[in-house]
Amino acid sequence: MTSATLAIRRIGIDTWRENVAFLHRDCPVVRAAGFQALSKVTVQANGRSIAAVLNVVDDARIVEPCELGLSEDAFARLAVAEGHAARIEHAEPPASITALQRKIAGEHLGRNELHAVVRDIAAARYTKIELAAFIVATQQYELDRDEVLHLTEAMIAVGQRLDWQSENNHRGLVVDKHCIGGIPGNRTSMLVVPIVAAHGLLCPKTSSRAITSPAGTADTMEVLAEVELPLARLQQIVRATHGCLAWGGAADLSPADDILISVERPLAIDSPGQMVASILSKKIAAGSTHLVLDIPVGPTAKVRSEPAAQRLKRLFEYVAERLGLQLDVVLTDGRQPIGRGIGPVLEARDVMQVLRGEAAAPQDLREKALLLAGRVIEFDPAVRGGGGERIAREILDSGRALASMEAIIDAQGRRMPPPPASRAFDVLAPQAGRVTGIDNLRLARIARLTGAPQVPGAGLDLFVRLDDAVQAGQPLYRLHAQFEADLDFARRMAGHDNAFRIDAANGVAA
Amino acid sequence: MTSATLAIRRIGIDTWRENVAFLHRDCPVVRAAGFQALSKVTVQANGRSIAAVLNVVDDARIVEPCELGLSEDAFARLAVAEGHAARIEHAEPPASITALQRKIAGEHLGRNELHAVVRDIAAARYTKIELAAFIVATQQYELDRDEVLHLTEAMIAVGQRLDWQSENNHRGLVVDKHCIGGIPGNRTSMLVVPIVAAHGLLCPKTSSRAITSPAGTADTMEVLAEVELPLARLQQIVRATHGCLAWGGAADLSPADDILISVERPLAIDSPGQMVASILSKKIAAGSTHLVLDIPVGPTAKVRSEPAAQRLKRLFEYVAERLGLQLDVVLTDGRQPIGRGIGPVLEARDVMQVLRGEAAAPQDLREKALLLAGRVIEFDPAVRGGGGERIAREILDSGRALASMEAIIDAQGRRMPPPPASRAFDVLAPQAGRVTGIDNLRLARIARLTGAPQVPGAGLDLFVRLDDAVQAGQPLYRLHAQFEADLDFARRMAGHDNAFRIDAANGVAA
Repeated sequence: MTSATLAIRRIGIDTWRENVAFLHRDCPVVRAAGFQALSKVTVQANGRSIAAVLNVVDDARIVEPCELGLSEDAFARLAVAEGHAARIEHAEPPASITALQRKIAGEHLGRNELHAVVRDIAAARYTKIELAAFIVATQQYELDRDEVLHLTEAMIAVGQRLDWQSENNHRGLVVDKHCIGGIPGNRTSMLVVPIVAAHGLLCPKTSSRAITSPAGTADTMEVLAEVELPLARLQQIVRATHGCLAWGGAADLSPADDILISVERPLAIDSPGQMVASILSKKIAAGSTHLVLDIPVGPTAKVRSEPAAQRLKRLFEYVAERLGLQLDVVLTDGRQPIGRGIGPVLEARDVMQVLRGEAAAPQDLREKALLLAGRVIEFDPAVRGGGGERIAREILDSGRALASMEAIIDAQGRRMPPPPASRAFDVLAPQAGRVTGIDNLRLARIARLTGAPQVPGAGLDLFVRLDDAVQAGQPLYRLHAQFEADLDFARRMAGHDNAFRIDAANGVAA
Repeated sequence: MTSATLAIRRIGIDTWRENVAFLHRDCPVVRAAGFQALSKVTVQANGRSIAAVLNVVDDARIVEPCELGLSEDAFARLAVAEGHAARIEHAEPPASITALQRKIAGEHLGRNELHAVVRDIAAARYTKIELAAFIVATQQYELDRDEVLHLTEAMIAVGQRLDWQSENNHRGLVVDKHCIGGIPGNRTSMLVVPIVAAHGLLCPKTSSRAITSPAGTADTMEVLAEVELPLARLQQIVRATHGCLAWGGAADLSPADDILISVERPLAIDSPGQMVASILSKKIAAGSTHLVLDIPVGPTAKVRSEPAAQRLKRLFEYVAERLGLQLDVVLTDGRQPIGRGIGPVLEARDVMQVLRGEAAAPQDLREKALLLAGRVIEFDPAVRGGGGERIAREILDSGRALASMEAIIDAQGRRMPPPPASRAFDVLAPQAGRVTGIDNLRLARIARLTGAPQVPGAGLDLFVRLDDAVQAGQPLYRLHAQFEADLDFARRMAGHDNAFRIDAANGVAA
């Protein structure tokens, strides 16, 4: 038999956005229909239908032979009660698989094909294997700019889209600032948002949590305030304060992109086309009309050369223009971390020092935030070209940015920041010399080993920057960890390679 | 903490050659080390170590917070008892991931890199996502012939390798015959093996079960005899009868290939490089010295044009020659199925009719088997070029091939073939005309819906072939199924498109 009725059982296994169905090996349906592990099936119940991958189970404590187990994602997506009758059938391949196969064969995909692919991805009809195939195929035969445009469009079409026009928005602008990532400590959003909100621009900023880095903006803001905010609450906050700094994960703004990212991440693939579609689809879905985009360039940044940065900039601009988004791309210095702290608590400390105008505040973070905030403020038609940064500086230095941030924190729900994690270890310069290189990737990895971002107070604190002269034995940075094992692990990795290149020839005498 | 001790629990879930580790969401290790679903981890116990993908579990009936669950494959691979203490850590990426990323970027891989990739694949260090990435990357930037050679070599190196030289093998040849697949009913191996064994050549044939087709040689032979034979038993049988027709799945001849196939199958990717490496690695590992390879060519075959067939032939020849395998490639007519039956019981019937010399025996199957058996026999240095087919015909017509087959069946363990499945339905020609096309893929799909190969008696029986004239309402083929639902499903698909093109203009008057 190719279909049969089974009782649904929810299986508490998180399969990370892949629908998995579990059938017992002795289930008559498995035997009769020739289902095997990794078969693609369609599960139907109560007029709803989902695609899933089958895992065959030998343990009746997980599923009994007359039950159909569903992973958490699949259960949520099918949205019927446990025990409900369901039917299972061999799945027809998703309609867009021919388009996927054409892309694998190196062909150009048209608008309708890309929309079909993205619809099937958003509906969880692709397996992880098919998703990986799509990602590799679109990375290899690089998407041309119209394909990127259509992919972006399609990603917007399958998600929610926010509308801020009815809010307290007399200028009609919804501004945002985004960085493509890759630079530890680069928490400028937490300065740009209060500055531009204080200027009166609407800036409903949503951010991600760290995926492979030691802290995302959402993780860092969470040290100071609640960030998991329902959409209605978010709109109230923005109405009251002009800004917010919330986690974007709950908003379902670009569900196809969320699914693709779950596969890109383990492959460490970040192709230009995917990056542009991912970022612009989320910003447009979030209702942004004007965006400042930060592309850091440096030997250990995501973009490693000026020509590559220019190509990426033009691709962003092409797609943004056709989708009606005003875009200002800023190429910045990505040769080293920004600020001193790396890790949620340490980065939040840097941000608050800048807002409070403390002498200890990291100047590089302050200056970069002012540059970017200035560019956002220049979206305001009342501001003259080149005048934005001066306005931003006035807002920051007058304390209005701090007041704006405090209002946002109170509106989201204030939290008491914990102190940096108590176990500490200083990594020392092994020789005298001048710092000629800092490896962003390596530092991020060391910081992650300390426990960040899961342990908010973990991370590291930089004492030395590019071009500084150091003595042998001088501390380069301090590791903070909550657990001894984490500190050991991070210390060992730093001992193997501390991420600093110190050139003795250019150095000072020891 | 980045590692901790947990008690191993075997989880009865078949994850199809991907190691999966299950940790409870409340496990202190998950919380402290920031493990999340799809994290790659290393599991260590008793001095052994495996890589696995993590699934996070919310149900303590599956794993408790202090347990480490392992899927069937992972449990078998780690090979320690339940309850044993294990440690889990974030996995370093497999060493060959940089080679994978170079291939994704379109670069050429050298011998050492391909060996490293294959070693990591065979050790289950690649996730399904990484496997899919490798398959798509090597399909897109098509492997050059040296890459195919090195891939094949590497696949042989990581598996078992059989040696037949000590067996009853006075000619020193170990012959085999293989078809690249795609043609329903094409069961020539079950005729070639007994013919060439009767000639005295050693032919230890192992075959696969059907993956996406309605019957593999192993499924069809299993109607007549046991096919799941331990290696020692197989060697006894070949010593006694010169041949065997066994399932190759248990032999672990090319474990990396078995893993790659588990991902190629759902993607329906069958790139030339992968095909050559897959087939030749298995044949060489099985100890073959001489191979006749059948490449069917036709509009719905795997190879659709003569130039494509010639390119594939040359690639097979290049790799085979460098690995010391004598190879004779035969391009055959792949425009339609071979024989009448499609499905294990019906195909076994065709084979036995040919061996018994029955008048009803399908002539196309007989003639193709004689052609291929003749080419195998010509590997015998004592046989003159062009003389093989005559010898094969004599062996078949004299009944020696039947006797050889009966001996092989008895040696493997005779089984009583069941009759064709009892529910039947004739698919009729909708109009008069001449048959100008038969769609192999569509017919295979219809046959699969009847229940083949899981229901051995299910399938279909062809009454009409290419170029035949048919009347409206004349039966084209008969569906056989065990279950009414299967018959309905197959009938509906045949009603939608019966896989026959009948051209009225060339037809006979109705």
